[in-house]
Amino acid sequence: MKVLILGGGGMLGQKLARRLIENGLNGDATPEITLHDVAFPAERFPGVEYKTGSIADPGVMEGMASLRPDVIFHLASIVSGEAEIDFDKGWQVNMHPTWALLQALRSEHDASGGAYVPRLVFTSSIAAFGSPYPERIGDDFLCAPQTSYGAQKVICETMIADFSRKGFIDGLSIRLPTICVRPGKANLAASSFFSGIIREPLSGVEAVLPVPDTVRHWHASPRTAVGFLTHAAGLDTALLEGRRALNLPGVSCTVAEQIDALREIAGAETVALIQPQPDPAIMKIVEGWPRDFDPVRARELGFQAETSFSDIIRVYLEDDLPNAKSG
Amino acid sequence: MKVLILGGGGMLGQKLARRLIENGLNGDATPEITLHDVAFPAERFPGVEYKTGSIADPGVMEGMASLRPDVIFHLASIVSGEAEIDFDKGWQVNMHPTWALLQALRSEHDASGGAYVPRLVFTSSIAAFGSPYPERIGDDFLCAPQTSYGAQKVICETMIADFSRKGFIDGLSIRLPTICVRPGKANLAASSFFSGIIREPLSGVEAVLPVPDTVRHWHASPRTAVGFLTHAAGLDTALLEGRRALNLPGVSCTVAEQIDALREIAGAETVALIQPQPDPAIMKIVEGWPRDFDPVRARELGFQAETSFSDIIRVYLEDDLPNAKSG
Repeated sequence: MKVLILGGGGMLGQKLARRLIENGLNGDATPEITLHDVAFPAERFPGVEYKTGSIADPGVMEGMASLRPDVIFHLASIVSGEAEIDFDKGWQVNMHPTWALLQALRSEHDASGGAYVPRLVFTSSIAAFGSPYPERIGDDFLCAPQTSYGAQKVICETMIADFSRKGFIDGLSIRLPTICVRPGKANLAASSFFSGIIREPLSGVEAVLPVPDTVRHWHASPRTAVGFLTHAAGLDTALLEGRRALNLPGVSCTVAEQIDALREIAGAETVALIQPQPDPAIMKIVEGWPRDFDPVRARELGFQAETSFSDIIRVYLEDDLPNAKSG
Repeated sequence: MKVLILGGGGMLGQKLARRLIENGLNGDATPEITLHDVAFPAERFPGVEYKTGSIADPGVMEGMASLRPDVIFHLASIVSGEAEIDFDKGWQVNMHPTWALLQALRSEHDASGGAYVPRLVFTSSIAAFGSPYPERIGDDFLCAPQTSYGAQKVICETMIADFSRKGFIDGLSIRLPTICVRPGKANLAASSFFSGIIREPLSGVEAVLPVPDTVRHWHASPRTAVGFLTHAAGLDTALLEGRRALNLPGVSCTVAEQIDALREIAGAETVALIQPQPDPAIMKIVEGWPRDFDPVRARELGFQAETSFSDIIRVYLEDDLPNAKSG
């Protein structure tokens, strides 16, 4: 089985590649893996094909499609904060290449006489939603994004659903919760602090908390996100009944509850490294974000997440903190 | 005031142009009107500028934007049936030109130092929705289109909302009910028969009914649709609170109720011209369509429609049947 990961150099792409190497995919213990991204970490996985470039460059998606991957994980995008700052770049990276990919896959489908129908797993986001919300967002709630990033995600979801309905591909979009605790450095995502206030103190470093601790949000660990991706790759999409975008399970908690969990695991001294420093710009963005979901469909389809924020911190301690300390 | 109507040669575009000539727009009694379309009826409105061409041709949208219209009505699209048959043409006409228009309007906005912020009124459709539905679709219900046409509408809505949020334009999308009774000939829309079973018998011509008379659907007259458009052109969009796509009011009724209304107005002899002739392909499409809405927001914002199907037939008798007989 051939597997392509677009955005394969990113945090999630790397963890996904590692999982595929260790566990295989859809019953194939040794899938042929190709990673595409603008850049990669220095340490490379043996036996994996690397392709470097921008998905926004002409011909790139046609080249990727010509590999005829059986499964494509499309994780490539610029993050919400960057798409807000650079409007053109947001659309150029987060929308147009998805269209080019779909058209290229459709050409391969046609050239194969209809035999080639790849599974496409697209990482969408809870940024597809915009306030006002019910306290818990149900599976039937409208998408009304309040960021360009969210708008681009909704548009890609809609294209993928239509190309799938026509039988050119077999795609689905999974709306990831905010991934927490992200290893590595803070990024331009407005949500970056949710990881920062856990990650930095656990490494003995101060972290800024730009919002009140009453803010409630929706989280899953990187390990769980990789589980979502591999589960989506093997899902019987007939069960989606034409609705190919899914709200995924996660943990709803307040920042205060995040901090309580950190205190319980790492002590008051660690928590003391969190510096409240209200940032009106970030507060305004975060106020517009979902707080809680009731993802009935995804749970019925077998997607599983952590059930407490303590579990999310423990995943970080097991999977990423050792590398952070050695790095 | 400069007004541009994209799709100005179509049934709705022509009626809208006539209304603007008769009543003005937003308090301006004599707006400068430009119509753009691939073709126009032979009879032309005096004092109106006509531009002929495809919105999908390179440079066309840039040319339209360079006119710096104060209000743009974007009605141009190919219909649902044609977009299903010709997948490429559907996306080429119903999606890409909207992107080109938005980018061109944004360039004019930038070139004006931010002073130029046109009102854009986009005709979306209840094809934005896909089954399963609640009995009445509320304002918070998700879009899950089951046709390419519906997918293209959702995508354009989403782009328009984001360009508006950024302040480049001031746009909104109005999801029209199925327009009934359409004058003229049947078109490739799968919904065409809803008009045909009223229009043809009223002209003494047989009409085919391809679905059971228990089918329930959502309708408004062409006159009401023009009213929606002019109301949208003058709306205070701050009241939309960032949700720039609206479900509009209409009449929910079954085909049997449509036929009862026709019998009451035109007699049993007229109704006898309706020939039930079940068409599984059309039935399958229509089964996936919305039946009823609860458009609270649009009603609060002052959008008004007929309240019975008899009223819809009477609008046809007043506005269009005289021309049908003379033509």
